[in-house]
Amino acid sequence: MVKIGIVGGTGYTGVELLRILASHPDADVRAITSRGEAGTRVVDMFASLRGHYDKLLFTAPDATDLKACDVVFFATPHGVAMAQARGLVEAGVKIIDLAADFRIRDVALFEKWYKIPHACPDLLAEAVYGLPEFHRGAIRKARIVGNPGCYPTSMQLGLVPLLEAGVVDSEHLIADCKSGASGAGRKAEIGLLLAEASDNFKAYGVSGHRHHPETVQELATHSRTPVNLIFTPHLLPMIRGILSTLYARLTRTDVDVQALFEKRYAGEPFVDVMPPGSAPDTRSVRASNVARIAVHRPDNGDMVTVIVVEDNLVKGAAGQAVQNMNLMFGLPETAGLTAAPVLP
Amino acid sequence: MVKIGIVGGTGYTGVELLRILASHPDADVRAITSRGEAGTRVVDMFASLRGHYDKLLFTAPDATDLKACDVVFFATPHGVAMAQARGLVEAGVKIIDLAADFRIRDVALFEKWYKIPHACPDLLAEAVYGLPEFHRGAIRKARIVGNPGCYPTSMQLGLVPLLEAGVVDSEHLIADCKSGASGAGRKAEIGLLLAEASDNFKAYGVSGHRHHPETVQELATHSRTPVNLIFTPHLLPMIRGILSTLYARLTRTDVDVQALFEKRYAGEPFVDVMPPGSAPDTRSVRASNVARIAVHRPDNGDMVTVIVVEDNLVKGAAGQAVQNMNLMFGLPETAGLTAAPVLP
Amino acid sequence: MVKIGIVGGTGYTGVELLRILASHPDADVRAITSRGEAGTRVVDMFASLRGHYDKLLFTAPDATDLKACDVVFFATPHGVAMAQARGLVEAGVKIIDLAADFRIRDVALFEKWYKIPHACPDLLAEAVYGLPEFHRGAIRKARIVGNPGCYPTSMQLGLVPLLEAGVVDSEHLIADCKSGASGAGRKAEIGLLLAEASDNFKAYGVSGHRHHPETVQELATHSRTPVNLIFTPHLLPMIRGILSTLYARLTRTDVDVQALFEKRYAGEPFVDVMPPGSAPDTRSVRASNVARIAVHRPDNGDMVTVIVVEDNLVKGAAGQAVQNMNLMFGLPETAGLTAAPVLP
Amino acid sequence: MVKIGIVGGTGYTGVELLRILASHPDADVRAITSRGEAGTRVVDMFASLRGHYDKLLFTAPDATDLKACDVVFFATPHGVAMAQARGLVEAGVKIIDLAADFRIRDVALFEKWYKIPHACPDLLAEAVYGLPEFHRGAIRKARIVGNPGCYPTSMQLGLVPLLEAGVVDSEHLIADCKSGASGAGRKAEIGLLLAEASDNFKAYGVSGHRHHPETVQELATHSRTPVNLIFTPHLLPMIRGILSTLYARLTRTDVDVQALFEKRYAGEPFVDVMPPGSAPDTRSVRASNVARIAVHRPDNGDMVTVIVVEDNLVKGAAGQAVQNMNLMFGLPETAGLTAAPVLP
Repeated sequence: MVKIGIVGGTGYTGVELLRILASHPDADVRAITSRGEAGTRVVDMFASLRGHYDKLLFTAPDATDLKACDVVFFATPHGVAMAQARGLVEAGVKIIDLAADFRIRDVALFEKWYKIPHACPDLLAEAVYGLPEFHRGAIRKARIVGNPGCYPTSMQLGLVPLLEAGVVDSEHLIADCKSGASGAGRKAEIGLLLAEASDNFKAYGVSGHRHHPETVQELATHSRTPVNLIFTPHLLPMIRGILSTLYARLTRTDVDVQALFEKRYAGEPFVDVMPPGSAPDTRSVRASNVARIAVHRPDNGDMVTVIVVEDNLVKGAAGQAVQNMNLMFGLPETAGLTAAPVLP
Repeated sequence: MVKIGIVGGTGYTGVELLRILASHPDADVRAITSRGEAGTRVVDMFASLRGHYDKLLFTAPDATDLKACDVVFFATPHGVAMAQARGLVEAGVKIIDLAADFRIRDVALFEKWYKIPHACPDLLAEAVYGLPEFHRGAIRKARIVGNPGCYPTSMQLGLVPLLEAGVVDSEHLIADCKSGASGAGRKAEIGLLLAEASDNFKAYGVSGHRHHPETVQELATHSRTPVNLIFTPHLLPMIRGILSTLYARLTRTDVDVQALFEKRYAGEPFVDVMPPGSAPDTRSVRASNVARIAVHRPDNGDMVTVIVVEDNLVKGAAGQAVQNMNLMFGLPETAGLTAAPVLP
Repeated sequence: MVKIGIVGGTGYTGVELLRILASHPDADVRAITSRGEAGTRVVDMFASLRGHYDKLLFTAPDATDLKACDVVFFATPHGVAMAQARGLVEAGVKIIDLAADFRIRDVALFEKWYKIPHACPDLLAEAVYGLPEFHRGAIRKARIVGNPGCYPTSMQLGLVPLLEAGVVDSEHLIADCKSGASGAGRKAEIGLLLAEASDNFKAYGVSGHRHHPETVQELATHSRTPVNLIFTPHLLPMIRGILSTLYARLTRTDVDVQALFEKRYAGEPFVDVMPPGSAPDTRSVRASNVARIAVHRPDNGDMVTVIVVEDNLVKGAAGQAVQNMNLMFGLPETAGLTAAPVLP
Repeated sequence: MVKIGIVGGTGYTGVELLRILASHPDADVRAITSRGEAGTRVVDMFASLRGHYDKLLFTAPDATDLKACDVVFFATPHGVAMAQARGLVEAGVKIIDLAADFRIRDVALFEKWYKIPHACPDLLAEAVYGLPEFHRGAIRKARIVGNPGCYPTSMQLGLVPLLEAGVVDSEHLIADCKSGASGAGRKAEIGLLLAEASDNFKAYGVSGHRHHPETVQELATHSRTPVNLIFTPHLLPMIRGILSTLYARLTRTDVDVQALFEKRYAGEPFVDVMPPGSAPDTRSVRASNVARIAVHRPDNGDMVTVIVVEDNLVKGAAGQAVQNMNLMFGLPETAGLTAAPVLP
């Protein structure tokens, strides 16, 4: 059994970790911290977990011995994981950060977008970007994993095969992305109220979104030519799910893009390349760690359209984090992640 | 033209007042105050009003000369209207309070539920409860109107005809009420987030809701026997609309309840008694001041079920306030309130 | 491994059975029939099941050897199960009918409400009503189980303890029930379109609903006094979930209703009596077989309000059917039903 | 008063016409036909219209004297208007077709996409494409107007200024469009059920959508270079509203795109160019004939992103049809179309 600590368990990624780990055959959640809810029973906050974690209490960060854990998940805002990383790593505890502290290699770039100095550039240097489909080997050996953002996961899964193959104009990539409201986290903001965001749709972050530099950094590692990406996030009037519609111009029109994707993801347990002509919907992956991808080439022209769906809280956050944990501890990669999506 | 001031215009009842008054032939909105948004253009906060109020700015309460208005609407939390009422009334300005300050006659009862002392019991004594279907004459002459709550409006419209006729057990009335999320106001609370309240349903306030004493007070004035009411509010995963399902036990089974309601509301422009067997839906009154009522007597037994739908922001708040204004200023009662509901 | 057949697998209860059984340790789905979709791969209809049932095809009813199964679930409209029951039962196959064919004991009453003659009154006589919390022993030995309706499950769980204890006026029970749209099934009806039913709320079936006689029949078996029930179903603008608000008048006011429920359901794996003062929401049981119950006595008066939430497709249909299967085959009652609810 | 007939009034564009015309100062709806609902009172089908059209009945097409009308709106599937156009036009009745019969100039192209022969190519030749912002003069004189599709309206409003100015690569235009479910019409299809389409999001028509040829035809008339358009429609889990995110590559980077749009639409009553940096949401135009446009140039690069929102049933259908009627009859262009959008 892997002894698990969770820092910051009152948000959506925290409760989703608890949900997934409740069915994981090798997971033992020992501690969950929350500054604001210390002393509260987890099940008093999330009735859905009654019967699963009846004795687990939120504890104060300072009063919690996380060093007794094998792994600690940080389901916190950015800045928290990097402040605690050194002590934990030195005590032999592995770290999976669901925020941005260990995603962006370039410290200056991190500090520009996140407005805080990085606390441990040396640890950042050794951290592994936790997208298993591209970094499985390194994740297995990592002490620190920076779990990818929800949008970046979908954009990379849909664009990397094209960039690796060098068949698209990498300087004019377009990602038109749509996310359910849970992607914004469990925080009290007017714009996320049901009465504001329901029966409504809008773009946001059009002047720049923090998932942009992370995505460009990773796409660039897979491309021999410079990467330029237009990224437009939109807020969907629903809870879970991301659908990214990705557009690229083919520089070679003799390529079989469907075959390219099928080959790239053959054997991947959590990436499902759909048959030609498909239009996957977000509910087809609801509450599941699977991403589904459809590849189109309208009118057989020089543009390729890639559609990627994922559950932002699972493959886009907590599920991918558990997938990473499985790799880091030599468990079956799919452990705890095999339940079928919830439809309807 | 009626010169209008609005205090506290950044909430849902405020913006709904603006929407309705934009089409009102005799309304001239002169001022709208907001402590937090002073200096902001109304249309920069509510893009929907672009082209309608392009020059109107939120102004600081202290810097606004409300005494130049003919009427001031208070679209504020409770406590604000009563603090400003005396000065305005003495200056000849009429007041319509959309909060609770002038609804509950019994000062002690008000203070028990709202946890603040009442600032002007003498003005409370002269204030009129603004449900035109029951108090039309008094409203016409009123200087201060306490606009009813959204739930109370629906419960009274559905129960008063039965109580007036003395045909039900008034001590065991049941109101199972369901409201869209806009009824909770435009405030940043976790429980009202789309990711919390969407695709979800729950009861709330089961240990007591502030609309209970107001409703019982008013029902009692129409009943010769004591009134006891079980009131269970529920939160619907939608924006607008209240549906109240009301149950009462008939003490006389020879009564034609359909005819009772049709007769009671004959000629009322905003109360629509539906044909027998109807099940009105909330969208049939969306964005409209109409309430629709259906009356049922299951299996011809001794129970009567009354279903009332209204738009909580219109007949339950801003629309009713405008209806009251029309009465207070001798305008046609339906002025500004004639647009058809928005369906679908 | 239990060899399983499913008749009529293209509806919501069918796909929900498949979802649940995909994680069941002892389930082997051998056949799934559909008249309309024979030859279609299950995963081509429900992409969510890709990777779980890749080789399973819908087959024509006549071309499917259901007698090779240990159990057959009927996820069909009423009338189908009773037409095939005799042949299967005589071949030693157990039957769990998710429709109404084996729920109503009184053949005349069945025929009045379902407008078809009953095909096998003798088998109906031996069938067991599949609500394990009340009929666990009989279900274990049953050849035929009539799986309860979704509304009736919630109403019985909430009212039976009160009737058993004889503490309420059984002739004036009120059930104000609200269901997500999936309860109406996967059928193309205008009234169930998103553009009709979303951002909207209404009562329906006010002149009579088929779940009424079933519920009254079962409630009566637990009551020493006659049962009369007012049942008002409503359609919620959401997918899954039932919340029933139940009202009864206490005939004895010295009863501790909270303790009554806690004692009645002590040890039940799928009934969760919440702490006093609770207001469970439907998402707290989303995609789970648990029903949660809260008991209230407003103002300590003579009325009791019971709130029951369940997932209409799980405890209200497919999950309860699997719970019944587990009992009929001597498996752990919770097998395949232990995953935590999906929240948010 | 303009005497109005509506053919096919039971769909969403039909009921929306009725809603708008109910507040139109010069509209007199004389007849509304429906093959299926002949004899039904309009208000018995749409309770929202009670009090507005209490005496209006759906009548059988053959039994209705449409020639007594000044104008007939066809709110029907394609193929109906062209079958009746000649008789009406010859009788001096003007026609506004909300379907596709009079949109596509090229008969062969029409027949390829709509799979029926065109009944009156000569009338098609004289028909005017009813987008007032581009064809106001011709519409004023037209006998037949082909009212644009909902998606095409948004795409043209957002792309035409760029094409007219000749500042973008017209051969690689991308339109990522998202529509509420009412855009699919009021028809009973599984995929449009609340339980299917709610809390869900998907692309559709990826292999080709009928609004593509119409849009390309019109865009081409405004461009000196060939037009090639990638169009990806998506289904939003909400009722009303289209948001189109349009991408084009600038061929001249010295252009001020914001100024370009502001100038192009100066004085237009129903096109609102938002301030720089805006992200309009669909609710800001809900139930209104206004389209709002925001123009972005991410990182000041060589791509322009244009966001257009409209209400698909108003500016995308019935509202634009009324705007066209106003022009055709010399009425103020905004008559009946001045109500503020409904928010929240």
